[in-house]
Amino acid sequence: MEKLSIFKIGGKMLDDAAELETFLQGFSRISGKKMLVHGGGIFADDLAKKLDIPITMHEGRRITSAPMRDLVTMVYGGLLNKQVVGRLQALGCDAIGLSGADGAVLKAKRRKPEPIDYGYVGDIVEVRKDLLELFLNQGMTPVLAPLSWEENGEILNSNADGVACKITEAFAGVYETCLFYCFDKPGVLLDINNPDSLLGSLDRPAYENLRKQKLVKDGMLPKLDSCFRARTLGAHQVLLSTPGNSLKFAAGEPYVGTLIQ
Amino acid sequence: MEKLSIFKIGGKMLDDAAELETFLQGFSRISGKKMLVHGGGIFADDLAKKLDIPITMHEGRRITSAPMRDLVTMVYGGLLNKQVVGRLQALGCDAIGLSGADGAVLKAKRRKPEPIDYGYVGDIVEVRKDLLELFLNQGMTPVLAPLSWEENGEILNSNADGVACKITEAFAGVYETCLFYCFDKPGVLLDINNPDSLLGSLDRPAYENLRKQKLVKDGMLPKLDSCFRARTLGAHQVLLSTPGNSLKFAAGEPYVGTLIQ
Repeated sequence: MEKLSIFKIGGKMLDDAAELETFLQGFSRISGKKMLVHGGGIFADDLAKKLDIPITMHEGRRITSAPMRDLVTMVYGGLLNKQVVGRLQALGCDAIGLSGADGAVLKAKRRKPEPIDYGYVGDIVEVRKDLLELFLNQGMTPVLAPLSWEENGEILNSNADGVACKITEAFAGVYETCLFYCFDKPGVLLDINNPDSLLGSLDRPAYENLRKQKLVKDGMLPKLDSCFRARTLGAHQVLLSTPGNSLKFAAGEPYVGTLIQ
Repeated sequence: MEKLSIFKIGGKMLDDAAELETFLQGFSRISGKKMLVHGGGIFADDLAKKLDIPITMHEGRRITSAPMRDLVTMVYGGLLNKQVVGRLQALGCDAIGLSGADGAVLKAKRRKPEPIDYGYVGDIVEVRKDLLELFLNQGMTPVLAPLSWEENGEILNSNADGVACKITEAFAGVYETCLFYCFDKPGVLLDINNPDSLLGSLDRPAYENLRKQKLVKDGMLPKLDSCFRARTLGAHQVLLSTPGNSLKFAAGEPYVGTLIQ
């Protein structure tokens, strides 16, 4: 089966021009079919503050009011997505930026308002595989913003980890999908302050144990849930590591990070 | 030759949700191959004011500083483009939003800083026809934001009238291209306050005459220049009218507006 590399990047890296450029240079050199899913960044929060749009979070997830939805549509779908695509094109990678509305590529259902009303937040129900394949078969690289689309026409905010997971799921069985969850840690650390406590691999029983002992918590929980979900649903390989380590592994070097079993 | 309808919309209509929806309903029903080019709107200026980004114009064209470039990338490439695409998809039109960076579809050169430094403004030098055709042949409708891409990776601000003109030029000889420049007047009026002074058609000598007599001026000059340029470069038909009249003409009704000869 042909390989498909799916990278998810987010957070701090998107706000650091130099770090982003280093990543994009490496990403543009990865051979074979590939996609990039990006999250938001601190810039959206900065802009919300300037515009007096309240920032409300619940368990690490953003509650998205109508003005906040418009703001993330601007920042994720406009600024970040086009900056990334513009740079990749300059690096010789034939990138195309997509939000969920474009070609209805990420169809979502708005999350029910109980028990928590997340506002304009969508859970992805369908990935338009044929369109993504059309791009891949043209040698193009889809770059996806974490925005989805509801059949009534609304743009919804979606979690980028979840988008990467759903895409991986959609292509399981079609490609050998390798999912790289890049973040600012080298992987799952037993002690967040000690890089030597890196777990080289993690299976579900071990994860459940860590969870019970509260050795993994907060933002790591939805991230690891997405990782395991992708693995269960057919991802050939799921690595949680830094962008640099992930690129090295994608280029054939031995891995540093946490491989999800 | 197969027909290709290219609509250009902009300005006030993009800020009026009800008017935009009426247009998009009509546009979604147009049969055959079609594209939509949208401009900016008043929202970008409102946002600039809130963010203390100075708004500088020269002869009706925006001087684009770096913060203003980021702002229009957000507003044109993010908010407006995705709102339009989201609605079209809901109306059953398989739209895909593109900025010039996406697939490097609109390659530009930054305008020289003399005699006026327009900042991050690009003049389009190449339209990636094969990518647009790929979409058209899939039954998809490209929706283009007035943003272009320079080979160094920069996103540039481009005039939407000019984008529509360049696309028309690129497809002349491939399709019977019909260009509809929609704006808030029924066409070229000899007396801007009198709708009865509408010119049903305009050729270049007549245009030069009106220009000398200052009967057309300001924002109409670059618009009409684009119209004549498109016509000269092979557009089958160029109509300047309201969105409603343009849709009626596209649907086969007699035209109301100014046909460029």
